[in-house]
Amino acid sequence: MVTPQMIDDAAERIHGYITETPLIRALALDEFLGCRVHLKLENMQVTGSFKFRGAMNKILKLSPRDKEMGIITASSGNHGKAVAYAAKSLGIKATVVVPDTASPFKIHSIEQYGAAIIKCNVSERFSLSEKLAEKHGYTLLHPYDDADIIAGQGTVGSEIIDESPNIDKIIVPTSGGGLLGGILSAVKPVKEGIKVYGTEPASIPRYTASLEAGERKKVEDRYTIADALVTNQPGMENFPVIQKHADGILTVQEDMFLSATKLMLMEGKIFAEPSGCVGIAAILSKQLAVDADDDVCFVISGGNAGAALLKQLDNI
Amino acid sequence: MVTPQMIDDAAERIHGYITETPLIRALALDEFLGCRVHLKLENMQVTGSFKFRGAMNKILKLSPRDKEMGIITASSGNHGKAVAYAAKSLGIKATVVVPDTASPFKIHSIEQYGAAIIKCNVSERFSLSEKLAEKHGYTLLHPYDDADIIAGQGTVGSEIIDESPNIDKIIVPTSGGGLLGGILSAVKPVKEGIKVYGTEPASIPRYTASLEAGERKKVEDRYTIADALVTNQPGMENFPVIQKHADGILTVQEDMFLSATKLMLMEGKIFAEPSGCVGIAAILSKQLAVDADDDVCFVISGGNAGAALLKQLDNI
Repeated sequence: MVTPQMIDDAAERIHGYITETPLIRALALDEFLGCRVHLKLENMQVTGSFKFRGAMNKILKLSPRDKEMGIITASSGNHGKAVAYAAKSLGIKATVVVPDTASPFKIHSIEQYGAAIIKCNVSERFSLSEKLAEKHGYTLLHPYDDADIIAGQGTVGSEIIDESPNIDKIIVPTSGGGLLGGILSAVKPVKEGIKVYGTEPASIPRYTASLEAGERKKVEDRYTIADALVTNQPGMENFPVIQKHADGILTVQEDMFLSATKLMLMEGKIFAEPSGCVGIAAILSKQLAVDADDDVCFVISGGNAGAALLKQLDNI
Repeated sequence: MVTPQMIDDAAERIHGYITETPLIRALALDEFLGCRVHLKLENMQVTGSFKFRGAMNKILKLSPRDKEMGIITASSGNHGKAVAYAAKSLGIKATVVVPDTASPFKIHSIEQYGAAIIKCNVSERFSLSEKLAEKHGYTLLHPYDDADIIAGQGTVGSEIIDESPNIDKIIVPTSGGGLLGGILSAVKPVKEGIKVYGTEPASIPRYTASLEAGERKKVEDRYTIADALVTNQPGMENFPVIQKHADGILTVQEDMFLSATKLMLMEGKIFAEPSGCVGIAAILSKQLAVDADDDVCFVISGGNAGAALLKQLDNI
């Protein structure tokens, strides 16, 4: 398990590259969610999501020789963007393998950071990136199943409890589990009584199914508008931590994502991507009992959305 | 002139009613604006704008008898909403005179706080509210030309310098001048070297014209999308303070408002009304030279906008 010391080291390592994102009190949301609402705004993180923390921590720890050889990852989303920008900042060659189904908008935002893009069939992207890593001596950056990545994401948790020691509950968007695993590792050993919950789309309930089964289950790949929460199986590193320490996994029905995103925008005045609003959606649909005296921190994990989302929000 | 002591007293008086709004570092906007960007988020204030501070300070200072008689104001916008909610919170009867041209959306948000609405011809709204005040013994709440209102708005300034002593420049949306006058009164006597600028729509340049003339000038009523910045003449109380202490008044061309509002939304991840983005628009259109080392605080004065604005932003 990632230790608080590893997370403190990560925080020191990535300081000066990341931004310590705002943790704000969002008074206007209290009446809708039934608790005292705090928002940790990782949609304002460099590259628009928390992924930059883990990517930066991982890359900074590489040996000089590994840095020289370059890095590779398979992701058309927030992780890909974070890796590309982290590599660019440090003058390291990065290759990003993207499925040929990825949107031009997303590919563009990876390309603009100077990463080499390789397109392939969606089912081949992991095997191809492994093959290329071996062939060229690239370091393969896994999006969540890596202790250095997890330690980087865990700095979100240490920032929350450092800045607001009165937080009772933290609600964390969950896909492979790197962010949830990292936050659990950061806060559970040092803050007695704090509750931490994961939230995932009901259409791809990889953690709910796996916790029920007592082992890592692969669930069906299905559509969700929460396009940053599409991993179909818990991470190997993260599953045992989440199994042992998470206070619950909440699921969100598909129709709640846009409602939550619109509430955040119109009442909270914050623009986030639907994946980042999964915690808001969970409480809005009463997946967890909270009361007016609870100080609940929602991790708003990302904000990478284009004008198309505005149109969708205008239509509901 | 409103003194720092009056502003400290106002802060103590309204504490527990208002929210001390977030002052955030908005890293993603630096490259667009050419300075270190800080945002004071009054769009997250109770009732969605800074107006609640002044209204609350004014009403709390009324005598028991005046409170019993009730209050009246003429405003279909942020001031009307703030007065209605402040009155409701304190159990005081409020009447709001609105022009018959006001949008149902705005009237609804005043009505929902339980204020009595009286509609009249737009040109008669001030004279009618004076007449009603006299007839019923109501206290008339001016939106900006009142020392207690100005002292309340000034608490925005004291919060900024208390929380971020490194701020070099403050950019303030300006209409009648209550917010700018209040902030100048709060920060100029206590913080040497800090620069404070007002910003107004170029289509209704009441301060630019008046400062040039050396006296309060009434300018033509014209359209602006910045519908909270439509006063056609500087306030009597505010003009001398602004004339003496403001470091400049910047003007913003009409076509810049939506660009600035969209930049705030898509890159800054903050939803604000166009009037609240006038400072961003001013720097975006290079009305003031700033450099990369400047810590510039933009007061985001309000966020009361409906879904119609999303459609407009999607279309540009």
